Amino acid sequence: MHRTTIGLLGFGTVGQALVSLIRESQPQIHVAKAVVRDVHRQRSVDVPMTTRPEDVLLNPSIDVVVDVMGGRDPARQWIKEALHANKDVVTANKEVLAYHGEELLAVARESGRHLRYEAAVAGGVPVLDALAHHLSVVPLERIDGVLNGTCNFVLSAMEQGIPYSRALADAKRLGYAEADPAADIEGDDTARKILLLAQLGFHTTVPMASVDTMGITEITDHHLARLKSFHLGLRLVGTAALNNGLLSLRVAPTVYRVPHPFLSLDGPDNVVRVVSSAGTFWFQGPGAGGYATATSIVSDITRIIHRTISVNNPNTERYPIHPAKRGPYVCFTHDTDRSLPLGLPGEIRRLGSYAIVSEGFAAEELDEYGLCQFLWGEEE
Amino acid sequence: MHRTTIGLLGFGTVGQALVSLIRESQPQIHVAKAVVRDVHRQRSVDVPMTTRPEDVLLNPSIDVVVDVMGGRDPARQWIKEALHANKDVVTANKEVLAYHGEELLAVARESGRHLRYEAAVAGGVPVLDALAHHLSVVPLERIDGVLNGTCNFVLSAMEQGIPYSRALADAKRLGYAEADPAADIEGDDTARKILLLAQLGFHTTVPMASVDTMGITEITDHHLARLKSFHLGLRLVGTAALNNGLLSLRVAPTVYRVPHPFLSLDGPDNVVRVVSSAGTFWFQGPGAGGYATATSIVSDITRIIHRTISVNNPNTERYPIHPAKRGPYVCFTHDTDRSLPLGLPGEIRRLGSYAIVSEGFAAEELDEYGLCQFLWGEEE
Repeated sequence: MHRTTIGLLGFGTVGQALVSLIRESQPQIHVAKAVVRDVHRQRSVDVPMTTRPEDVLLNPSIDVVVDVMGGRDPARQWIKEALHANKDVVTANKEVLAYHGEELLAVARESGRHLRYEAAVAGGVPVLDALAHHLSVVPLERIDGVLNGTCNFVLSAMEQGIPYSRALADAKRLGYAEADPAADIEGDDTARKILLLAQLGFHTTVPMASVDTMGITEITDHHLARLKSFHLGLRLVGTAALNNGLLSLRVAPTVYRVPHPFLSLDGPDNVVRVVSSAGTFWFQGPGAGGYATATSIVSDITRIIHRTISVNNPNTERYPIHPAKRGPYVCFTHDTDRSLPLGLPGEIRRLGSYAIVSEGFAAEELDEYGLCQFLWGEEE
Repeated sequence: MHRTTIGLLGFGTVGQALVSLIRESQPQIHVAKAVVRDVHRQRSVDVPMTTRPEDVLLNPSIDVVVDVMGGRDPARQWIKEALHANKDVVTANKEVLAYHGEELLAVARESGRHLRYEAAVAGGVPVLDALAHHLSVVPLERIDGVLNGTCNFVLSAMEQGIPYSRALADAKRLGYAEADPAADIEGDDTARKILLLAQLGFHTTVPMASVDTMGITEITDHHLARLKSFHLGLRLVGTAALNNGLLSLRVAPTVYRVPHPFLSLDGPDNVVRVVSSAGTFWFQGPGAGGYATATSIVSDITRIIHRTISVNNPNTERYPIHPAKRGPYVCFTHDTDRSLPLGLPGEIRRLGSYAIVSEGFAAEELDEYGLCQFLWGEEE
């Protein structure tokens, strides 16, 4: 049996889970070395470690370089060096792909190597593979989903009355939160993922700056209790929609009527919905956690080994990016039962922070795509 | 550009949708000929037709033979002839695969050709591809799902108070029902699909006779209304579960607590849940309809063209088949409010047909996997 040798950039939660999974089930894969910052930190599995990236990037015995370290730099440079050194690259790093994906994919093409990133979106859920191959057969209208395990976990916990700070601490303790939770809760992580999904699904390239992004930092357990009383629920949702040739990308706390598939997700699960002319497809599963993410990395490595990589349509489509179109807004506040009609943003602002969702609203006005524009009421 | 030439066995709803989809989006595929019973029947698209199978099976210009006719014979013979004639085969025919899959896959291996069948399970949903590649990395514990569009459509309609016969007639009129609806409503179609999923997911071979199968023919809109009053719902579900090295396959009307993802499916949609050691994955989408099914067929053809077919683990595992283990049963009848405890089958039978689900049952006893054993109460 031919063995494929891999080297790791980073050796944290995902890297260690990856090594465990490979040793359990993938005898054809050999893990040669891991680049780390601190060789003395305790790890759950034993792999030769080095602090010098060239020991992996320029190592002639390594076939595939796996980036499990995150962040834009030095990942961008190291991925390029690995591709130039004739190695295939598998990465779970959504940040470097969202900002530098076009450049890195071009380097991969020029070098005749593969750059695979199934693990970068929705953890263990094989949605990129489905978009790249199966769903490329039909025109897509919309991709949306709950893509950040941390936000989902925190919102689920807050729905149970657990305050924000304790929910976030729990998420970190359980290993769902990323190294920098700011990227999760401010929406940037979701923005990177919806951008990667949109680029693959709509065969186009989208700059990160065009993703209209709002996180969950202003949302409290009180807001969620209030929504619940209206039979509504909230999730942080990334959306890419193609309307009349205009593409719009958005991340926003979005309200859905109970029950809705986005609302019934378990804490760290992710779900992606793909609306196409052949119908609506849903992909759901573990969006975070070392073992689930490692599954996608192994899946990519074995596609490279067996040369069964989907032939992607090139990203040749160019769509005008839709200007962010705000409204109608859902507004509610803490202190009043005054029932006010919904209106356009301008009208709502004139009403100040005491506007609330009227009782009749929930059942009649919310469609399956929800409502994602808010003015969170503040008590004065 | 190299063109791949295909020939069709059958030219009904799926065949015609396939030709439309190919002509819309797949210029590299040429449809040469279709084998039909009646060349004079009106079709929505124009393809040369023949009543002689050898015009396709032995046609030297045809690369890929696509079986969209259904049924065990002559499909079994024709697929073998196509493989022997060095053609790859793509089929949407779950029946021939469920009964003769092992033989046909062996012929494909011996001939060095591909036999692909993504469209045979869950229509447009790419779940076989995910099982064959991505999910083969981790051990599975369970596969279950709502796999028959007709039953789901009929049960959804009956929940709205539409009687069985009218619901079934609607399903036929809308093209969701198979040519022979008996296979749908008696559970055989679901049995074939769960068998194909189980074989792929558990890397094994299962005889059709070992699938414990019950359909929905005894279920009335009255039953569904009764369930609703207990905050329960019902779907026809196929299940393959591996417990302590024993594999059990079952098709049964199964009751779930509201809300449950299986209960909120749109009429013709299918959903497959895969429980693995890396978490639980859900795949959902259009399970019937010509265009959705054609998407999976095109997906298979393009995997053959680009040689990007997943390397399946061989079906070398051999599990003892679990003996059907009945109970506990859910019992209810039409005419009484008597509240009786659940019990084992023997006990229930002694209670006769007037046992009902006790009020406390729904919320406390049903887990996410539901309950699938019934004695439908009859008024005496």
